[in-house]
Amino acid sequence: MEAFELLATDGRARRGRIRTARGDVETPAFMPVATQGTVKSLTPSDLVAAGAQMVLSNTYHLSLRPGHEVIRELGGLHRFMGWHGPILTDSGGFQVFSLSRLRKIGEDGVEFRSHVDGSLRFLSPEVCIEVQHALGADLIHPLDECLAHPAAELDTERSLALTLRWLRRCLDAHRRGPGAARLFGIVQGGAFERLRRRAVEETCALALDGYAIGGLAVGEPKALMYDLTELCAGLLPPDRPRYLMGVGKPQDLVESVARGVDLFDCVMPTRNARNGQAFTAEGPLVITHARFARDPAPLDPECRCEACGGFSRAYLRHLFMARELLAYRLLSLHNLTFYLGLMADMRRAIAEGSFAALRARLRDRYEVQFVAGSNSSADPEA
Amino acid sequence: MEAFELLATDGRARRGRIRTARGDVETPAFMPVATQGTVKSLTPSDLVAAGAQMVLSNTYHLSLRPGHEVIRELGGLHRFMGWHGPILTDSGGFQVFSLSRLRKIGEDGVEFRSHVDGSLRFLSPEVCIEVQHALGADLIHPLDECLAHPAAELDTERSLALTLRWLRRCLDAHRRGPGAARLFGIVQGGAFERLRRRAVEETCALALDGYAIGGLAVGEPKALMYDLTELCAGLLPPDRPRYLMGVGKPQDLVESVARGVDLFDCVMPTRNARNGQAFTAEGPLVITHARFARDPAPLDPECRCEACGGFSRAYLRHLFMARELLAYRLLSLHNLTFYLGLMADMRRAIAEGSFAALRARLRDRYEVQFVAGSNSSADPEA
Repeated sequence: MEAFELLATDGRARRGRIRTARGDVETPAFMPVATQGTVKSLTPSDLVAAGAQMVLSNTYHLSLRPGHEVIRELGGLHRFMGWHGPILTDSGGFQVFSLSRLRKIGEDGVEFRSHVDGSLRFLSPEVCIEVQHALGADLIHPLDECLAHPAAELDTERSLALTLRWLRRCLDAHRRGPGAARLFGIVQGGAFERLRRRAVEETCALALDGYAIGGLAVGEPKALMYDLTELCAGLLPPDRPRYLMGVGKPQDLVESVARGVDLFDCVMPTRNARNGQAFTAEGPLVITHARFARDPAPLDPECRCEACGGFSRAYLRHLFMARELLAYRLLSLHNLTFYLGLMADMRRAIAEGSFAALRARLRDRYEVQFVAGSNSSADPEA
Repeated sequence: MEAFELLATDGRARRGRIRTARGDVETPAFMPVATQGTVKSLTPSDLVAAGAQMVLSNTYHLSLRPGHEVIRELGGLHRFMGWHGPILTDSGGFQVFSLSRLRKIGEDGVEFRSHVDGSLRFLSPEVCIEVQHALGADLIHPLDECLAHPAAELDTERSLALTLRWLRRCLDAHRRGPGAARLFGIVQGGAFERLRRRAVEETCALALDGYAIGGLAVGEPKALMYDLTELCAGLLPPDRPRYLMGVGKPQDLVESVARGVDLFDCVMPTRNARNGQAFTAEGPLVITHARFARDPAPLDPECRCEACGGFSRAYLRHLFMARELLAYRLLSLHNLTFYLGLMADMRRAIAEGSFAALRARLRDRYEVQFVAGSNSSADPEA
């Protein structure tokens, strides 16, 4: 079975389908983030209602708590968390470099201290693949080194070389292992065109099932992120899915689809929900603002989610002011519904050949309004 | 329309029906507590799925935040919180005496400082009824003074007399006010049989739509609570519903139904859920215990709630250990399903004339096992 089917293109935007053992994913697609085996505050049936097709879970978090062996023993991550659609896992590398106290990084792998209990742990390319096999994820990733922006060219080149050596070890480990998972490659190379080109070339030489673009949304200017996304997507083979890791705002999703990206994940819809920010067709709003205290309208009159169907802004504001748990749940459900609806709109537009018009309309709407901060690497949901 | 229909009796246990403008409540019934206009972490549709017929909301909390005038302006509490079944509100008296910094208590009413913002507030019998009318509750309560146990007989008698004078003012205010709410009386009198008898007599002389038994579950020994419940229930008129306020554990519900009580509320199922305690057919369990770390069984194999249908104890334990919001939601849903199922079991047994057998079976099961603490008056959910 081919890993990916390209159904239509509209400019550089692509309408496709990722094939997994647990069902297809229509692309462009956005994955809600289930960091610790749960999309915070929501059940799997909420995710289905919101329109989710695939979720992302974090190898780093699950290997530390409850432990991948526990999850394997209980029948794998799908059964454990009650999500029966496809699951993509990252390699754990990004979290090791951003959340743990790093002890030592070498050719073999990374020694670090768990942020949960301070225990000493070791992550190598082989362990990384072994953990993802134990979880039973459908799409898995190789261990990569992640540098913060800005990094010097020489450091970036050394880091890329290590990532590429690790990738070959990951591929060997993956081939030796059990299961039907598909291994993606991760294209690093920092802010340097020369290194990005080398990364694409050497990664694609391994003929993997899909390609992630890594090392973006880590502090670089927005224009640079778009340029590097365009560069990488333009170099990647058309018959494989392209996944832009950790991106982003609604505007970023549209602009990246316009540059040929197929797959996204980001904690923004759920994390911002917990901070009171709702994404709406008219731009974002912060529900705690006093102007909503007596507002009988739903969060977003165009939205059909449970939060918008049953509750007023005044009520949701009350829940936030009173720190009621239901507040986080209802805004999370709404924001994911918004994100997943945006992806569905883009899929339809590409299929109809009207993506440029949709993009222009959304750009007018979002340009000024979406100003929320980018991913913070200090947040445990990242 | 009569406020109450008595359908069957079995010993002193009663199977009945409370009539409200928003539908009937089959009794014996348990009300989930929506302190701030939300049963913590759950939506109204969750409550329906769990079997809830009526919820309780707290006049004190809602009058301070968001304010009853805001709720009235938004169409009343039912529309505000999206719960379209009957709502019962308490008078706010219990919370004024237990949560606020009390400034002055006099014949007129109570001056206190809000626990939310420290502002100076005044609660009188007239204000208490006005607030409940503004909320649009279906069953409402008069302002009463609540004493902690133990209290001297003289103090209790003075307090009861004040409560009875306030009741008459509440009834006048209620009759002057708008709407279809039904006013219940609250029987106080502390631990003294003589005063309880007087309380029942003078309260019932006003021919109200139902009667609450107040001032129990406030620190007195369990045997005394049962005795006083039995005394009051035995004196109350058979053609009106009897509501035992703030009670209690599953065992208490069964024992109180056996003594003729029809209606209950308690924060225990939801508060204990948030502390990791699940009520099950085999007794309670604390989900964080290490023995559940690899347990693939649901919380309660006999339960049909969403938590038991989709998730293992191992997963729920993981959610708790990781402090995931979904943990509180799933255990709350389960515990309420358990409580409401217990009430349905009792209703069936009374109708069939098999309540004594059910009571004996449950007593064997619960006697030793249910040892969780009683209501804490310091908790804002109380």
